[in-house]
Amino acid sequence: MTKQLIFGHKSPDTDTICSAIVYADLKKQLGYEVEPVRLGELNGETSYALDYFNQEAPRFVETVANETGEVILVDHNERQQSVDDIDEVEVKEVIDHHRIANFETKSPLYYRAEPVGCTATILNKMYKENGVEVSETMAGLMVSSIISDSLLFKSPTCTAEDEKAAEELAAKARIDLNEYGLDMLKAGTDISGKSAEELISLDAKAFDMGEANVRIAQVNTVDTNEVLSRKEELEGAMQKEIDDNGYDLFVLLITDILDSDSTALTVGDKQEAVEKAFDVKLEDNKAVLKDVVSRKKQVVPPLNKVLG
Amino acid sequence: MTKQLIFGHKSPDTDTICSAIVYADLKKQLGYEVEPVRLGELNGETSYALDYFNQEAPRFVETVANETGEVILVDHNERQQSVDDIDEVEVKEVIDHHRIANFETKSPLYYRAEPVGCTATILNKMYKENGVEVSETMAGLMVSSIISDSLLFKSPTCTAEDEKAAEELAAKARIDLNEYGLDMLKAGTDISGKSAEELISLDAKAFDMGEANVRIAQVNTVDTNEVLSRKEELEGAMQKEIDDNGYDLFVLLITDILDSDSTALTVGDKQEAVEKAFDVKLEDNKAVLKDVVSRKKQVVPPLNKVLG
Repeated sequence: MTKQLIFGHKSPDTDTICSAIVYADLKKQLGYEVEPVRLGELNGETSYALDYFNQEAPRFVETVANETGEVILVDHNERQQSVDDIDEVEVKEVIDHHRIANFETKSPLYYRAEPVGCTATILNKMYKENGVEVSETMAGLMVSSIISDSLLFKSPTCTAEDEKAAEELAAKARIDLNEYGLDMLKAGTDISGKSAEELISLDAKAFDMGEANVRIAQVNTVDTNEVLSRKEELEGAMQKEIDDNGYDLFVLLITDILDSDSTALTVGDKQEAVEKAFDVKLEDNKAVLKDVVSRKKQVVPPLNKVLG
Repeated sequence: MTKQLIFGHKSPDTDTICSAIVYADLKKQLGYEVEPVRLGELNGETSYALDYFNQEAPRFVETVANETGEVILVDHNERQQSVDDIDEVEVKEVIDHHRIANFETKSPLYYRAEPVGCTATILNKMYKENGVEVSETMAGLMVSSIISDSLLFKSPTCTAEDEKAAEELAAKARIDLNEYGLDMLKAGTDISGKSAEELISLDAKAFDMGEANVRIAQVNTVDTNEVLSRKEELEGAMQKEIDDNGYDLFVLLITDILDSDSTALTVGDKQEAVEKAFDVKLEDNKAVLKDVVSRKKQVVPPLNKVLG
């Protein structure tokens, strides 16, 4: 039997790392030879979760074809988010909760995507379908994923199924959902020791909207003012990204995980699109977006409507 | 709630028709408003199965966007095998057992593909996962699908899971697997009264392989010579399809369901790809492919390797 590598997307977040570990656990119990790996550095939030549950981080890899011909993708499917040499191996399985795009196989495979808030919610179901018990550690990693992807159930991407799974898993992992959840999310908000360049690229994606090329980065925080105290430095880094990559607009979402609002900091020619999209007035390049926490569901669509 | 239409591929076979009906039954029992439809005429085998279990055929449709915005695909995902206006509706779910290609969505969806021999095998599992009882009729339709796609378990696409499901479903449907299976398969081999155009389009699929556009049709028979007695007529019809649609290669597989070999009849510019792919010499545009019964597992991959 070929050993299969299991991994999530580049710029890994908690769901991508934990789902790789968890699915490897399930597959091993079903008799397969698999190993979870990662495509990038752990963020502070994910490190907190792994430490809490005494779980080792997966091994870092830059390429996979040098060690196996078969891989399993979790939490992504789009080629540009995957390992660089993805085209040189066979994707045997995908477990995901995103749209399907830039993905193609030569042969039939196991593909399981569900429109839920988190990959771990699907994995929890798969343990049940296969009649395999979930250990305390695996429960802890899965509930961490759900808390992370849903910002403790506040994101509009979160479904009833995610919440139910999180409650069930929290009991198995013997944690208090709110207490552990807030501690874990806070661990991801430590910006000391991070350069402005790092802050605007840790979780950043580019989007084509009509003629405009828009970059949207997101930083979670429990203290928006702490982030804003570095406003000039951040604006400088954003302007440099614009100069280097020709973006028409750079939006940095500073998301307060406690009150679930975001502050948008904007640089670029198309700043007024933010004012139109959210019906706000930018002051000093910034505006508060009430109840906005999800880039995918709450920021991209209205901006796209104005620019697209 | 929007009514969702459920359908399989064009040139429908037994699995495509029955899986649409069966998944509609499951979704309805789960409280959804759905209707199974079909994109083409029933073949003799499928008619036999529906008649045997007193099941009405799904309604025929040419387009779907005129009546709904949401659809569910079974037994296929590639755009060119689907309804002509597939790009105008949202695909909410896919239940399939093929490779993924030419498929892309804007939003997350439920996508369930497994590398088994038949869509119905997956559906049988989904009844269990949802705690819904399988009726005698639905069991009959599912076991018919498995018999059809596996050529009574002789195809290499058939897995242990398919066989187990078929045995379980045969008991529920109160049929003798071998007796019913052979009768059903034979019902699909009657070519009298069928034009050459019908024979090459009853079970035909188009594939993009590299730069080449390849059409592969399959006809089951208990008497290969009976089919080959109409060789010139068939070649004429294949050439016309090539002229009309720009295919680079048309392969007609004439599959003997008793001895499990196929004879390939080929027309088009890329005929030599067949010789390379199967290490055979075409004589008079035809060659015997020993032990080949599966288009998906035994014909598409080697052809794709040569052309792709």
